[in-house]
Amino acid sequence: MKGAAMRATVLHKPGDVRFEERAEPKILAPTDAIIRLSATCVCGSDLWPYRGVQAVTEPTPMGHEYCGIVEEVGSAVASVKPGQFVIGSFFASDNTCPHCKAGYQTSCQHREPVSGAQAPRMRVPLADGTLVVTAEVPPDALVPSLLAVSDVFGTGWFAADAANVNPGSTVVVVGDGAVGLLAVLSAKQMGAERIIAMSRHETRQALAREFGATDIVSVRGDEGVARIKELTRGIGADSVLECVGTQESMLQAIGAARPGGFVSYVGVPHGVSLDGEKLFFSHVHLHGGPAPVRRFMPQLIDLVWSRKVNPGKVFDLTLPLEKVAEGYRAMDERRAIKALLRP
Amino acid sequence: MKGAAMRATVLHKPGDVRFEERAEPKILAPTDAIIRLSATCVCGSDLWPYRGVQAVTEPTPMGHEYCGIVEEVGSAVASVKPGQFVIGSFFASDNTCPHCKAGYQTSCQHREPVSGAQAPRMRVPLADGTLVVTAEVPPDALVPSLLAVSDVFGTGWFAADAANVNPGSTVVVVGDGAVGLLAVLSAKQMGAERIIAMSRHETRQALAREFGATDIVSVRGDEGVARIKELTRGIGADSVLECVGTQESMLQAIGAARPGGFVSYVGVPHGVSLDGEKLFFSHVHLHGGPAPVRRFMPQLIDLVWSRKVNPGKVFDLTLPLEKVAEGYRAMDERRAIKALLRP
Repeated sequence: MKGAAMRATVLHKPGDVRFEERAEPKILAPTDAIIRLSATCVCGSDLWPYRGVQAVTEPTPMGHEYCGIVEEVGSAVASVKPGQFVIGSFFASDNTCPHCKAGYQTSCQHREPVSGAQAPRMRVPLADGTLVVTAEVPPDALVPSLLAVSDVFGTGWFAADAANVNPGSTVVVVGDGAVGLLAVLSAKQMGAERIIAMSRHETRQALAREFGATDIVSVRGDEGVARIKELTRGIGADSVLECVGTQESMLQAIGAARPGGFVSYVGVPHGVSLDGEKLFFSHVHLHGGPAPVRRFMPQLIDLVWSRKVNPGKVFDLTLPLEKVAEGYRAMDERRAIKALLRP
Repeated sequence: MKGAAMRATVLHKPGDVRFEERAEPKILAPTDAIIRLSATCVCGSDLWPYRGVQAVTEPTPMGHEYCGIVEEVGSAVASVKPGQFVIGSFFASDNTCPHCKAGYQTSCQHREPVSGAQAPRMRVPLADGTLVVTAEVPPDALVPSLLAVSDVFGTGWFAADAANVNPGSTVVVVGDGAVGLLAVLSAKQMGAERIIAMSRHETRQALAREFGATDIVSVRGDEGVARIKELTRGIGADSVLECVGTQESMLQAIGAARPGGFVSYVGVPHGVSLDGEKLFFSHVHLHGGPAPVRRFMPQLIDLVWSRKVNPGKVFDLTLPLEKVAEGYRAMDERRAIKALLRP
């Protein structure tokens, strides 16, 4: 099949997603693997260039969330074999450098972005470090939740981890996208006692509650901060998980935390600028960045495999891959939380 | 003596420090105490208004570092008695509110700034929560180190604590003022294996080495960051303690940390603005704020009392209190690290 053509997703300019002919992926480095996708999806972060907030300078193959069957591996790949089911994250990492060993695989000294996952087949660099093999090929019903591990569940989990969520914590989640909803689920798994989800959308509020939210706050900005303070006896939350990436959401997150509390942020900030003096007197801990999903993957796959969690519920729209443009539209218009694509 | 006059330190405008007549302090609230100062000093943060970086809108009684003998207490004060030697921090705190209990006494729900310490006598609000009593009245030789606990040692300790310094850590300290130097000492006490002090001044470099610095870096900015990377095999430091408070020093601190590393900042930021996206991709943990010195005071007093540390060495100039203006000048011109004042 190599050298042949396939149809895959390309963003030409804001709003213009096409499912069109592209060359089949092939092994470029001996550490590469080629996988056939069992499922893929549209990410909230794909909406930044789709909406023109992030520049699109040339036709760009889209997609960075993936799971599927290994078809071919490069000569240097040792731990991954054709026929296995694998999951990987949005940055390829060697998983052996000092940053990987410290648990920050998305800052791997040899990291490479992964792209072109909204396609029938894709190339994954640094396959040994990047891909995690499941015990066996999963039943089809498990695929959506395993796909969620690739990014949104891993990112939501990092949000909770980076914000120091512990048994008994009072947690606020800012953002009701798939990441925010799975941050709620993650906080619940980590034993949070109270989880306040900030959401203005009824269907998302319902899923947040199903995932473990104990309270919903539907106002934003200063009003939202005031409501959080009311709900926490004037103290503020122990942990605030910022899952949006705008100036308003960051300030709301910092304002909702108690002095000494923890604020995490996991979406690429767009136009965010933090005033040093205000941050200083807020007394919060701040941590975030591109979620090192690889760190959490084995644990999250176990949680899914043992049916303890069902993060795949964030996919409220399933489309055949060739209808990918409708997936973007539905998410852009907030008609869907997250669109699953079946090749 | 109440109602009588004393002479004390007042800042009239930038550069204009006067030692002049003021009313003796008196008990204003039943939770107050009046203490007679054994020693006081000039703080690096006093230089912000002295240099006009921070506005001086009216004649301002100066000084917030203090230790001395209790002379009088309000009717509600239970744990502090006249004749005792006490040390307090720059914010009065009740030490019982939720923020205090969480270890953030400088964000106490009832906090009050402490001022007027560059004087023979002063009023301390919330005496029960704010003041720590020593086992006995200390010998005079111990007074400088006990005074250091009041702010600079406590702040340097918080810098190390907030930057997660642990046995074996590689630590960078940005800033060679008294706080930076005592951050070096604190990191050493916490078991840091490598402590890189950034300093361009020979006498400060020498004291940094005496306090535990293993390396000195005398270049700044991007060049300083590059040198830290060289010294850490391209990885960056586990912990970076920012003890200055300028835009340059903050960016230098963030740039010197490894992904997943910890950056603390303990000086009020002046003109600092952090770009959200850059901070995101730096992958650092960030924590700081007004140092909750009260949290660490009992432990630091023990360290001083048992002669395990000698933080008083940062006082390289001792003056009679009435020469306070010379203390400001010497620190402003960097002729002195820190000026001790004896009433």
